[in-house]
Amino acid sequence: MATMKDVAKKAGVGMGTVSRALNNSGSVKAETRARILKVIEELDYTPNEIARSFKKQKNKLVGLMVPMINHPFFAELTYFIEDELFKNGYKLMICSSSTDREKEIEYLQMLKKNQVDGIITISYHDIYQNELIELPLVTIDRYISDEIPLISSDNYLGGSMAVEHLINAGCQKLAYVGGEPRYKSTVSDRKRAFIELANQSNIPYTIFEVEEPTIAIMSSEMAYAEHVAEEFVKTHPEVDGIITSADVFAYAVINELIKVGKRVPEDVKVIGYDGVPSLIKMDRQLSTIKQPVEALARQSANVLISLIDGEEVPMQSIFPVEYIDGDTC
Amino acid sequence: MATMKDVAKKAGVGMGTVSRALNNSGSVKAETRARILKVIEELDYTPNEIARSFKKQKNKLVGLMVPMINHPFFAELTYFIEDELFKNGYKLMICSSSTDREKEIEYLQMLKKNQVDGIITISYHDIYQNELIELPLVTIDRYISDEIPLISSDNYLGGSMAVEHLINAGCQKLAYVGGEPRYKSTVSDRKRAFIELANQSNIPYTIFEVEEPTIAIMSSEMAYAEHVAEEFVKTHPEVDGIITSADVFAYAVINELIKVGKRVPEDVKVIGYDGVPSLIKMDRQLSTIKQPVEALARQSANVLISLIDGEEVPMQSIFPVEYIDGDTC
Repeated sequence: MATMKDVAKKAGVGMGTVSRALNNSGSVKAETRARILKVIEELDYTPNEIARSFKKQKNKLVGLMVPMINHPFFAELTYFIEDELFKNGYKLMICSSSTDREKEIEYLQMLKKNQVDGIITISYHDIYQNELIELPLVTIDRYISDEIPLISSDNYLGGSMAVEHLINAGCQKLAYVGGEPRYKSTVSDRKRAFIELANQSNIPYTIFEVEEPTIAIMSSEMAYAEHVAEEFVKTHPEVDGIITSADVFAYAVINELIKVGKRVPEDVKVIGYDGVPSLIKMDRQLSTIKQPVEALARQSANVLISLIDGEEVPMQSIFPVEYIDGDTC
Repeated sequence: MATMKDVAKKAGVGMGTVSRALNNSGSVKAETRARILKVIEELDYTPNEIARSFKKQKNKLVGLMVPMINHPFFAELTYFIEDELFKNGYKLMICSSSTDREKEIEYLQMLKKNQVDGIITISYHDIYQNELIELPLVTIDRYISDEIPLISSDNYLGGSMAVEHLINAGCQKLAYVGGEPRYKSTVSDRKRAFIELANQSNIPYTIFEVEEPTIAIMSSEMAYAEHVAEEFVKTHPEVDGIITSADVFAYAVINELIKVGKRVPEDVKVIGYDGVPSLIKMDRQLSTIKQPVEALARQSANVLISLIDGEEVPMQSIFPVEYIDGDTC
């Protein structure tokens, strides 16, 4: 008797794709679906009916995988995802993996065992192969494959806006300061925009990145940002306009600049990234690129619910960002 | 045939206590356990063996109920609880209730349905009656009953330390500023210490509390803190030493004082509470009472694991706090 694996092999797709085509539980291109159905007919494949009915039984339960629940951006995102899901009759099971790959795999297995109807993931690991998941899946900020809907803010736009603000404010030597990401993510578009716009404007610039350690505790992330800031300020006294990869780096850089006697924004202008409210301002407000965290969260929830219901969904949902005019640029 | 309800009634205890006595899954006083066993003999009660064996099957899964996952203190606590549980072979299912009572009840039911071995709760609601839970339970910061282990930091000590620091720094008119809690919690000990020590030292003081709205979004909590701070500073120009119920209020008060031309700490000294690292300092560091969030979290996890294993556990674990000497006192 033919198995799902045989169907997948002959149709030239993954088992997850076959599963989604059968269950209407995800986005599959019309022509791919047609090819799969043809192979199913050819091989006389009968899906395991018990397994299928079991799968179709909705538990009204969704799993969320976050790398660090104590990071302000992820915590805020989680809050709104839960809120949107609950409004739609779904409960949310939150798993925090401390950016640990093995832990994330164990939590994925737990979510499957607890029969969640779908998963939203913000992950830095390559563990979301369709064959392993076989569940409706939505990814935030990080592209997984053409078949998995991606929700993200417009990182290229954010990087461009920041550069333009620095140039318009009269900056002549720019720098991009941040952690060197260990994993591919749409976040790298911020840096790409920075480089392209600086080149177009003939403004000299520096990319200053220090390889990011495994960070799961906010206090460690701050210590790391302070280390990066200290190194940068020491070695780049000529820079007068700085964009950072996240707000935490901007705060660290500003503190370091003040320590060495520079004035912000008079001598050096600084723009952060994220705009998360729980990073409390004190005395002055950070100029930053604000991500629409609430919109990102609600869209992730709604796209996943549509996937679970077998509806058509956008494969990319890209939201605009906003420049927050604070006191540091 | 006698039921567990009959046993509970005759022994004068809740069904949760009978369940825990039978399953060794919680702390029951020796004399209570003896009384229950005597009643069981008298009534010839046979526990439902199937249900019992089902219950005894450990899923190595724990549920956590937090009021707001996006609040830095709870987010940090959650991070370390997950870390400690995972080290001990347990996975953590996190539920964020937005301080909504009905939502919390639904999540509790979900956790039971998913057969967690026990629950850690930081809750402001009276929904943890033993009869409803029948599961090993640990509570953080809020007393539930003598039978439920409580993990907390020493809030009275924290309040005392803050008052002493203000008095030693020469303050003559004190104020306690914060949200008026809607629910009873050990946090009120901070205020009690403030009042008792100010009275003992014959220092005049004000309690300035504004009733707390339902807050689940950090940005709303900040807006609320700013509102409280504005009202306070406007109406209490004579105060020269302030203790706040949480760091967010301290930041708001300091910003407001600076707005009206006061210098911190020269004119007014301010001490916050919590000491959560993700509340990023800028230009100056907040003087605050730091809760040992990591220790609280790990102890909660370990007490719960002991309860699940049927071991004796401390009914109260109270951790000391620490004064952080910043730039505002």
